[in-house]
Amino acid sequence: MDPVLREELILAKLRERVAYAWERSDFYRRLWGSAGVGPNTLHTLADLRRFPLVTKDAIRDDQAASPPFGSNLCCDPAEIARVHGTSGTTGRPVLFAISRDDWERIGAAHARIMWSFGVRPEDTVFLASFFSLYMGSWGALAGAETLGATVFPYGAGVPGQTERSLDYLALVRPTVFYGTPSYALHLAKVAEERGDDPRELGFRIMFFSGEAGAGIPATKARIESTFGATCIDTGSMAEMTPWMTNAECDERTGMHLWDDIVYTEIVDRDTLEPIDGDGEGVPVYTHLERSSQPMIRLLSADLTRVTSEPCPCGRTYRRLPEGIYGRIDDMLVIRGANVYPHVIENTLRTTPGLGVEYRLVVERPGELDLLTVECESSDPGVADEVADRVQRAVGLRARVTVHPPGTLPTTEFKARRVDDRRATASPL
Amino acid sequence: MDPVLREELILAKLRERVAYAWERSDFYRRLWGSAGVGPNTLHTLADLRRFPLVTKDAIRDDQAASPPFGSNLCCDPAEIARVHGTSGTTGRPVLFAISRDDWERIGAAHARIMWSFGVRPEDTVFLASFFSLYMGSWGALAGAETLGATVFPYGAGVPGQTERSLDYLALVRPTVFYGTPSYALHLAKVAEERGDDPRELGFRIMFFSGEAGAGIPATKARIESTFGATCIDTGSMAEMTPWMTNAECDERTGMHLWDDIVYTEIVDRDTLEPIDGDGEGVPVYTHLERSSQPMIRLLSADLTRVTSEPCPCGRTYRRLPEGIYGRIDDMLVIRGANVYPHVIENTLRTTPGLGVEYRLVVERPGELDLLTVECESSDPGVADEVADRVQRAVGLRARVTVHPPGTLPTTEFKARRVDDRRATASPL
Repeated sequence: MDPVLREELILAKLRERVAYAWERSDFYRRLWGSAGVGPNTLHTLADLRRFPLVTKDAIRDDQAASPPFGSNLCCDPAEIARVHGTSGTTGRPVLFAISRDDWERIGAAHARIMWSFGVRPEDTVFLASFFSLYMGSWGALAGAETLGATVFPYGAGVPGQTERSLDYLALVRPTVFYGTPSYALHLAKVAEERGDDPRELGFRIMFFSGEAGAGIPATKARIESTFGATCIDTGSMAEMTPWMTNAECDERTGMHLWDDIVYTEIVDRDTLEPIDGDGEGVPVYTHLERSSQPMIRLLSADLTRVTSEPCPCGRTYRRLPEGIYGRIDDMLVIRGANVYPHVIENTLRTTPGLGVEYRLVVERPGELDLLTVECESSDPGVADEVADRVQRAVGLRARVTVHPPGTLPTTEFKARRVDDRRATASPL
Repeated sequence: MDPVLREELILAKLRERVAYAWERSDFYRRLWGSAGVGPNTLHTLADLRRFPLVTKDAIRDDQAASPPFGSNLCCDPAEIARVHGTSGTTGRPVLFAISRDDWERIGAAHARIMWSFGVRPEDTVFLASFFSLYMGSWGALAGAETLGATVFPYGAGVPGQTERSLDYLALVRPTVFYGTPSYALHLAKVAEERGDDPRELGFRIMFFSGEAGAGIPATKARIESTFGATCIDTGSMAEMTPWMTNAECDERTGMHLWDDIVYTEIVDRDTLEPIDGDGEGVPVYTHLERSSQPMIRLLSADLTRVTSEPCPCGRTYRRLPEGIYGRIDDMLVIRGANVYPHVIENTLRTTPGLGVEYRLVVERPGELDLLTVECESSDPGVADEVADRVQRAVGLRARVTVHPPGTLPTTEFKARRVDDRRATASPL
């Protein structure tokens, strides 16, 4: 589609959403009123930057003040079809109330996007993520159902479930996998432990969300060679469901931004002002099709680079060629250097002979920060090579601890592999 | 509805299903061909008894011979919307392939039945069972969605999930609960341990499947008094989905048989011939609305009693006034007496001061069988009273072991509380 025509469409949808929110949402009337903006502010797409950013904290506070769903519900409570939420492991959970119409539109958007990376009605989609609050599982299920594929919603999370899944996979022979990259690598390990070749599972396409892994080149290559399947990176944020509007097409040149469903600005990480054209920054998302809890300028904590260079697929959507490769809140400053965990992950994945699991520990035993990289290998002598490679990648000498294969704790769901002990250990 | 008119409708639907299966299913053509029956056999409902019974073993064997879905798939594989299955903890799993049309009809049937026990579109339904292969969770979800209620598919099965659910319940305030009776009593215990009154959770209706508990009078009374909610027993078999066609209405006089969706015969447990009129026997189920894997005369292993006596609700469906109260394969023969575990459960639930958990152990240490009832109480002196009550109920003196409250293993999903050690311990 001609990007100019698309921008007209986006502007029309955006104006309609802003007017709708102004009408229905106390949350936006308060926020926008105090900033002196409203529906009449919006003459061009560029005017959107005059609207204040919405933070996750603001949503949480609003839900605490107006329980349970906040002052941005917008639809009649009778229209709520589904309730989901954040896992709430730290502090008050944030609840998602999704209307019936929205749920249908979410299924339609995901079906359209899944088609772009190759899923077809003849496919059987194995859904290997936990079915509970987590929007990932349910959003992938809705997309696969709307597309007309066969769904096999097997789930994950219960002890022993991965082992048993191999029996079912051998019988049902799904062609598409959905889950987290950590879980896919765990599944491969379990298969290999019983002497099965993961390539024999028969997956043609594996698509992922919930973690950055599928966009990290070495992890993508590892998944593709392990399973003999195409590895597709997808996903924005649960609050932004349809979260699949960031998604690679089957060319795998980085995630496209499906801007006519969720409009994305990339803002400078320091000024939070939209950047001009291509470059690095933080995504700010705006729903164009949600009638329940619409997000208008939700600030993510993600770091990415955007480009308008053409993709061989022919779609004119902008792309994030390296995916989402960091979080502005997970960058580690170690001895003055900016260290992104994904860079170290990429280094470890390209080092021969290392296992799937790893852990980064940051401490301050004396005056200086100490970074320890824990990895798995049957050859303890690999430690020096790992230290050299990490130093070349992040400019920092790390202590490397090599554990025997299979002895580091297994990460099945969203991987949390960074243990920064300085915050709690440091004196006031 | 006039039962005579309904029988005409059932006969018409049955003839159509039998003709459909004869046309599409190698499984039934083989089975019926060797018995000399076919579509032309069926002139009255009573003719159905001439068709052979289908056993679960026959389905398993057929799927092994014609993987993955057996020779009774009937629909085009492209029409399969969902794959589920049995948990397969013993032997080869049985797979369920459900067509798109069937899935819609399942949702519609469950919505209609949920309405009969009081669920309305204004309700929010908390689904507290594991979302994976288990048909219970998905069937309840489909029904609640079709009815237009708000669904909160929280799931179960992951360590710590029950504790966290209490935070969400306090925020979302669902009015309807679905799960197993064991899980509901576990949830109550967890709530009480943090000082919460389960009645404050605000459930109005709690409906159950997967276990007999909600049909056992004392368990039903315990759930109703613990939560201040109406306890509804539902459920036939996963193979028979829509499994909710056995379900109590809000009068709670035992499960109605929704015979125009799944037609049910009650057969004598010894002769396997249909009984005439009211009485005890084993349900044999026939799908009237499934186009994928239709079951025609599936023999259950359940024991029940059927009656045609009217229900105050005005529905003319027959009822199972004591629910499904035993399994023909779980009856224990102890020192020559027939002992049903549910009878002992009922005894324990009506004994004041006992905890939720219990266990029955049957051994043969010497010549004689020994039944041990393990229960929980803070008063060890309750043992004699329990032994007396069990003796009155089943005619057998049991040894009673009293454990401190909270020390028996917790049963969260389908309860397996009988440990018969004689089978493995007995000499050849």
